[in-house]
Amino acid sequence: MNSAIIQETASRIQPLNPAWRAQAQARLDRLTKPQGSLGRLEELAAWYVAVREDLKSSLKKKVVMIFAADHGVVAEGVSAYPQDVTFQMVANFLQGGAGINVLARHVGAEVQVVDIGVKYDFSGFSGLISRKVAFGSRNLAQEAALSRAEAEAAINVGIELAQENIAAGADVLATGEMGIGNTTPAAALAAVFTGEPAATVTGRGTGVDDAGYRRKVEVIERALALHQPDPRDPVEVLAKLGGLEIGGLTGLILGAAAARRPVLLDGFIATAAALVAARLCPAVSDYLKAAHRSAEFGHQVMLASLGLRPLLDLDLRLGEGTGAALGINLLEVGLKIYHEMATFAEAGVSGKDS
Amino acid sequence: MNSAIIQETASRIQPLNPAWRAQAQARLDRLTKPQGSLGRLEELAAWYVAVREDLKSSLKKKVVMIFAADHGVVAEGVSAYPQDVTFQMVANFLQGGAGINVLARHVGAEVQVVDIGVKYDFSGFSGLISRKVAFGSRNLAQEAALSRAEAEAAINVGIELAQENIAAGADVLATGEMGIGNTTPAAALAAVFTGEPAATVTGRGTGVDDAGYRRKVEVIERALALHQPDPRDPVEVLAKLGGLEIGGLTGLILGAAAARRPVLLDGFIATAAALVAARLCPAVSDYLKAAHRSAEFGHQVMLASLGLRPLLDLDLRLGEGTGAALGINLLEVGLKIYHEMATFAEAGVSGKDS
Repeated sequence: MNSAIIQETASRIQPLNPAWRAQAQARLDRLTKPQGSLGRLEELAAWYVAVREDLKSSLKKKVVMIFAADHGVVAEGVSAYPQDVTFQMVANFLQGGAGINVLARHVGAEVQVVDIGVKYDFSGFSGLISRKVAFGSRNLAQEAALSRAEAEAAINVGIELAQENIAAGADVLATGEMGIGNTTPAAALAAVFTGEPAATVTGRGTGVDDAGYRRKVEVIERALALHQPDPRDPVEVLAKLGGLEIGGLTGLILGAAAARRPVLLDGFIATAAALVAARLCPAVSDYLKAAHRSAEFGHQVMLASLGLRPLLDLDLRLGEGTGAALGINLLEVGLKIYHEMATFAEAGVSGKDS
Repeated sequence: MNSAIIQETASRIQPLNPAWRAQAQARLDRLTKPQGSLGRLEELAAWYVAVREDLKSSLKKKVVMIFAADHGVVAEGVSAYPQDVTFQMVANFLQGGAGINVLARHVGAEVQVVDIGVKYDFSGFSGLISRKVAFGSRNLAQEAALSRAEAEAAINVGIELAQENIAAGADVLATGEMGIGNTTPAAALAAVFTGEPAATVTGRGTGVDDAGYRRKVEVIERALALHQPDPRDPVEVLAKLGGLEIGGLTGLILGAAAARRPVLLDGFIATAAALVAARLCPAVSDYLKAAHRSAEFGHQVMLASLGLRPLLDLDLRLGEGTGAALGINLLEVGLKIYHEMATFAEAGVSGKDS
C-alpha cells in the first residue's frame, strides 16, 4: 500500500520545462540592471517560475517542516548529546525558543513539528503533529534500523504532509529535522549513494571529540559491511541504515515535487534524504535548491552527487531547517526582483551600448 | 579644513575591544544549539555587540546610502552603458524601481540617494540629497580625475552624512553607489593599494566586450604610469584616480567607524573606498563586513588585502548596494538569534555530554 503510493508519487514528477525558465529570464533581462547582474537571485526567480509554471507566481505561504526521530545507534556513543535532547528540543520548537523558530519568524515561515519517531510519549503536548511510526530506529550497527514497512510508512508520512500543506496553500516547503545521532545514518546513506568511503562523508555532527569521531566512522563501516546495502533499492537502503525523520523528509521532497512545489534543502540530513528521493526519481532534483553548504564534513560530496550548488556558505551546522529558512529568504528576494523592479522602458533608462 | 576633519575623524577610530565580543559569545554559547553551530550568524552578532559596546544592542534603523557620480574616463570607451544612465538610474532610485529599492524594502532599510558628482542638473528633483562636489570627475587617463580639494570635499560629504544619519539614530550603514564607468577608477585604486597589476584587479563591469576589456586594462595601466600614485598618501591617490562617489563612501566608512557604527560593504566600488579608508586608518576594517563577493573579477584580491571574508557569494555584480542590503539581513538574523533564542536552562534542554 505505502509502496504503491511512493511509486505513484515518484511517477508524477516531471523534469522542469526549460521554456518557463526562458520566459522568466526574458522578463528579468528587461529590468533596469545589466543582464544577469543579480546572479543567483535571478536563478531563483526563474527556477520558481519554472517549478510553478506560472509567470505571475507569487510566494506567500512558506512552511518549514521539522521531522523528529530518535536513533538506536546512539548506543554506540556517536553523539555528543544525550538522546533526551531530541524530545527536549521538540518541546523547545513548540515553545518557539529554538534557532529555527527565530529564523522562521524572520522569514515569515510557519514551523510545523512532526513526531515521526521520537523515543518519548508526547501525550499532552499541544501543537505537535503526531505521526509516530516507531519509538525510534534500532541500532544500525547491529541490525536493520527499520523494517521495510517502517521505512515506507515514514516516506508516506512525508508525502501525505506535503500534500496536506499544498492543499492548504503552501508555496514552498523547507526541510527541517531533529534527531540526536542522525548524522550517523545520514553519513551511512551518503556513503552508499555516492560510493565514497565512510571517512569521506562523515563529520563531527554536533561536536564529538576525536575518539567519538573514530567510533562513528567505524560504526558506519561496520553497518555497511553488515547490511551490504544495494543502492538500486533505495527504500531498502533507507530501512537498513534508517532514520525515520530521513524517511519523512524523503517523502516530503517527493510529495512536493509531484505537486510542482519547490523544496529548499537544509543541510547534511536533508541532503541524505534528497539522495534517497533522487534514486527513486532522478527528476526530483529539478525541484530542489540546496540552501547552504553545511560545515558538516561530507556535505559537499553529497551536493555534488545531486548536481546542487549551495546558495549560502555560512559555516552553519545546526540543522533544524535553519539554513533552509535563510534560503526561503533568498528565494523571496529573487521573486521580488522579478515582480517589483522597473523595466528599462518603464524607468526611461538607456540600454547597453545605446 | 576638510583635511583636518578627515584626520580628526580617522584619529577617533579605535580597534574593537575583544572583551565585548567574548561576552557576546558567552551568551551565544548558552543558547540551545551546539556551540558555534550558527557559524557566521554568531560572528555577526558578536561583532555588532563589540562595535556598539552594548550587550543589549538592538538593530532598528538601517540606512543604505547611494553616492552617485560621473566619470570623465568614460570617454575612453570603458563602459558598456552610456553616461546618461547615471542620472537616469538616480531618477529610478528616487522612483523606487531599481534593484536596491526592492532589496532595501525587503530588509526594512531606508535608501538615501546622494548626488555627489553627477554630470546632470537635478533642479526640480525631490528626494535627492544634493551634495555635488563637481559635475563628474575628469579623465584619469589624461589628467588627475579630481583636485586634492575635490577629493577631500567628497570624503567630507561622506563623513558629514554618516554623522547626520547616526545623530538621527542609524544603527547600521550600508554602502551603495551609482556611476557609469566607476569600475575603472575602483580597479585603478585596487591596483595601487594591493600592489597587483591592473589585469589582476580589472573586470568587465556592467559587461564590456573583449575589446572594451582590453581598453579598460590599458587605460588603467596608462593612468598608473602617468600619475605614479603613492599609496602612502591615500587622499592624493583618490584625487588622481578619482571617483567622487568613491570619496563619499570613504568618508561614510570613516564617519561610521569613528561613531562606533557598523558598515556593510557592497561590492567592488565600496571595497575600493574601504582600501582608501584603511590606508587613512587601519583600524577601520574592524567596523566593516564584506556583505558579498562580487562576480567582478578582482574583488577577492581587494577583500583579502583588507582581511575581509565575504558573507555571501551569489554572483552579484549590480552594485547600488544590493549585496550590502542582503548583508543587513544576515546581521539582523544574527542579532535575533542572540536576543531571541532560549538558553539551555530556560528551555530545560540537556547540555553536551551531560
